[in-house]
Amino acid sequence: MARAWILKSRPVGMPQMADFDLKDIGDQPLADGQIRVQNQWLSVDPYMRGRMNDVKSYVPPFALGEPMQGGAVGTVTESRNPAFAVGDTVLHMAGWRDEAVVGMEAMPNKLPVDMGLPAETWLHNMGLTGATAWVGMFKIADAKPSDTVFVSAAAGAVGSAVVQIAKAKGMTVIGSAGGAEKCAWVKDLGADAVIDYKAGPVLPQLIEALKAVGKRGVDVYFDNVGGDHLDAALATANDYARFPICGMIDSYNSMEPLQLRYAMRIIAAKIRIEGFIYMDKFMSCADEFYADMGQMIASGAVKARVTTMNGLEATPDAFLGLFTGKNTGKMLVKL
Amino acid sequence: MARAWILKSRPVGMPQMADFDLKDIGDQPLADGQIRVQNQWLSVDPYMRGRMNDVKSYVPPFALGEPMQGGAVGTVTESRNPAFAVGDTVLHMAGWRDEAVVGMEAMPNKLPVDMGLPAETWLHNMGLTGATAWVGMFKIADAKPSDTVFVSAAAGAVGSAVVQIAKAKGMTVIGSAGGAEKCAWVKDLGADAVIDYKAGPVLPQLIEALKAVGKRGVDVYFDNVGGDHLDAALATANDYARFPICGMIDSYNSMEPLQLRYAMRIIAAKIRIEGFIYMDKFMSCADEFYADMGQMIASGAVKARVTTMNGLEATPDAFLGLFTGKNTGKMLVKL
Repeated sequence: MARAWILKSRPVGMPQMADFDLKDIGDQPLADGQIRVQNQWLSVDPYMRGRMNDVKSYVPPFALGEPMQGGAVGTVTESRNPAFAVGDTVLHMAGWRDEAVVGMEAMPNKLPVDMGLPAETWLHNMGLTGATAWVGMFKIADAKPSDTVFVSAAAGAVGSAVVQIAKAKGMTVIGSAGGAEKCAWVKDLGADAVIDYKAGPVLPQLIEALKAVGKRGVDVYFDNVGGDHLDAALATANDYARFPICGMIDSYNSMEPLQLRYAMRIIAAKIRIEGFIYMDKFMSCADEFYADMGQMIASGAVKARVTTMNGLEATPDAFLGLFTGKNTGKMLVKL
Repeated sequence: MARAWILKSRPVGMPQMADFDLKDIGDQPLADGQIRVQNQWLSVDPYMRGRMNDVKSYVPPFALGEPMQGGAVGTVTESRNPAFAVGDTVLHMAGWRDEAVVGMEAMPNKLPVDMGLPAETWLHNMGLTGATAWVGMFKIADAKPSDTVFVSAAAGAVGSAVVQIAKAKGMTVIGSAGGAEKCAWVKDLGADAVIDYKAGPVLPQLIEALKAVGKRGVDVYFDNVGGDHLDAALATANDYARFPICGMIDSYNSMEPLQLRYAMRIIAAKIRIEGFIYMDKFMSCADEFYADMGQMIASGAVKARVTTMNGLEATPDAFLGLFTGKNTGKMLVKL
C-alpha cells in the first residue's frame, strides 16, 4: 500500500509536524503513459516552504489534503509508457511518498546510470541544487575568475556547490556557515575564508575575512539567506557587484520585514540584485551545465556531501531540519 | 568679489543651515586653460547629500572649508582657454558660487544656444536629471512600450522626466507624488494614474491604481524614494520586473534601516534591482540621448517645470527643500 505525506494545514511561520499527515494513497492502477516507481531517495528543499502557502509563486501551491510533490529518484516497477522499462532508474517530481504513480506531469527522466555517479547525484550536484548554484553564478552573476565571491549557507546544498564551482574556476571565495563543524567543512571544500555567523555579527567578520584574503570587497554575493548576510554584502560590495538572490531562508518563516542598513549602497556601488529560479534559465543551458558540472564532478573539483534521514516517516523532520541547520550539504531522505 | 558656499561641517541626518557658510573666495587670476564664468543658474540635486558625508562613493566627498561643487550655467567673462570665448554660455560643475574660475576639472561645455532651448535646460531635461531618467529607463530597465511603469517622486525633476518619456514611448504610467497639487501636475504630464503618498499608505493605493489602469502588476519601478514605495513595488511586481534604483531620498538623511516586507518577491517574481549612476552609461549613449530627448522636447512630449529660488543666498534653502518636497519639477537657483 503506497503512502504519501499530505499537507493538512497551511503553516503560519515555521511549519509544525501537525501541518503534515502521512496517508495511505492506495494502489491505483496505471493509466496509459504512466509508470509506477519505487522511490529510493526523496529530496527536501527550502523552496517547498513557499508551496505550502496559498500564494501564487513560480510554482503552484501544494493542494491541501493531497500528496505533496518534490524531487525523487527510484526504480520503475511497472510501466505503461514505452519510454520506460521495469528496472529503469528515474528522476521525477512525485516525491514525499514511497511508491509513486508517475505521469508526464511529474516529469520523469531516465538517469544515465552508466556515468558511474550514484543515482541521488541527480537530486543534488547534477540536479536542482547544483544547477541552481551554476545558473546563479554564470547566467545571473556573470561570475569570472577575478571575482571575490561571498556565499551564505555555504555548508548547504546550493552553497557548497557554489563554493566548489567558484574555486574550480579560480575565484576567491568567502563562505558563511553556522558552527565550527560546518565551517571546517566549508574550508575543506576550498573556501579561502569562512565566517561562523553563529559566533558573532556577520559584517565585522566579513570585513576581517576580506582583509585575510587580501581583497577590497565583494564582487558576487550568492544569497541563500537574506537578512544580515545580505546587508553585510551590501556594505562591502565593490562597484558593479552582482547579487544572485537564490534564497532568503531567514525570511521564509518570518513575519518580520527584512531590514537593510546599507541599502543606499545599491546606488553608490551600482549593485545589481537579481532574484532567479534556475529552471527559467536552465532550458537554454542544460547541455552546457551537464557537461561542465559532470566534468567538475569527474575531476574531483566538486564533491558531494549528503545528510541522510532514513525512512518515509522522517520526511517532515528532514524538511524542517533545513530551517534549523540540521543538514551539511544536501538533505535527502533514504527509503 | 566672488562668493561661494562652503561645507562648514558634515551633516548628521538632515543637513542644517549651520552646516553651510557663504564665503568670499576672492578674485583669483586665471591660469592657462581656465575661464571665468558669471553663473546665472545653479543646480541643487539630491545626490549632493552623499557628497557631504566623508564616505567614498561614486563622487568624492566635498572637502570641509572648500567651495562645494554642482552643475551650473553661466556666461564666460574672461578666457585663457582658446575653446571658449567671452560671451559663450557654458555648463560646468563649479556651482554653489556666483562667479567661478573654471578649469578642465570642472568639465566646462559650451552650450548649443542656437537650438532655441533656454540655457537652464542643460541643468534639467537635457542635463543630469533628464539623462538620469532616460538612462534608467532604457539602459538599465530596458523599458518597452508594453510595460507598466511605476515611478516615485513623479513630480520631481527625474520623476517628471520619467513620466513624460514613458508616455512618449507608449507605456502605461502610474506616478506617486505628495499632495493634491503635485498629483494634479503629474496627471497633466500624462500619467495614467497618480498616487498621493501623503494621503495614505502606498501599497493599497498602488493596487487600486493598477486596477484603474487595467494592469496586473508593475514591470518597471523607477525608484527615487526607497522605503514604502520600493516595498509596494516589490509586492505588485510582475515576473521579471526591473527596478532601476536612482535614488532613495527617504533614506538620505535617515539613520533607520530600510524595511521591506515583500523582499521575498525578489525571488518569486525574479525581480532585477539595479542601482545606477547615469554618468556610467552616458558616455556610450550621449548622442542617442541628446537626439531622442531633443526630439521629445521639440515635439512637446517632454515639458519642463522649474521651481526657482532667487539669489546665491538661497542655495542651501533650495537644496534642503529637495528633502521636504518644496520643488515641483527641477529645483534651480537663479542668480
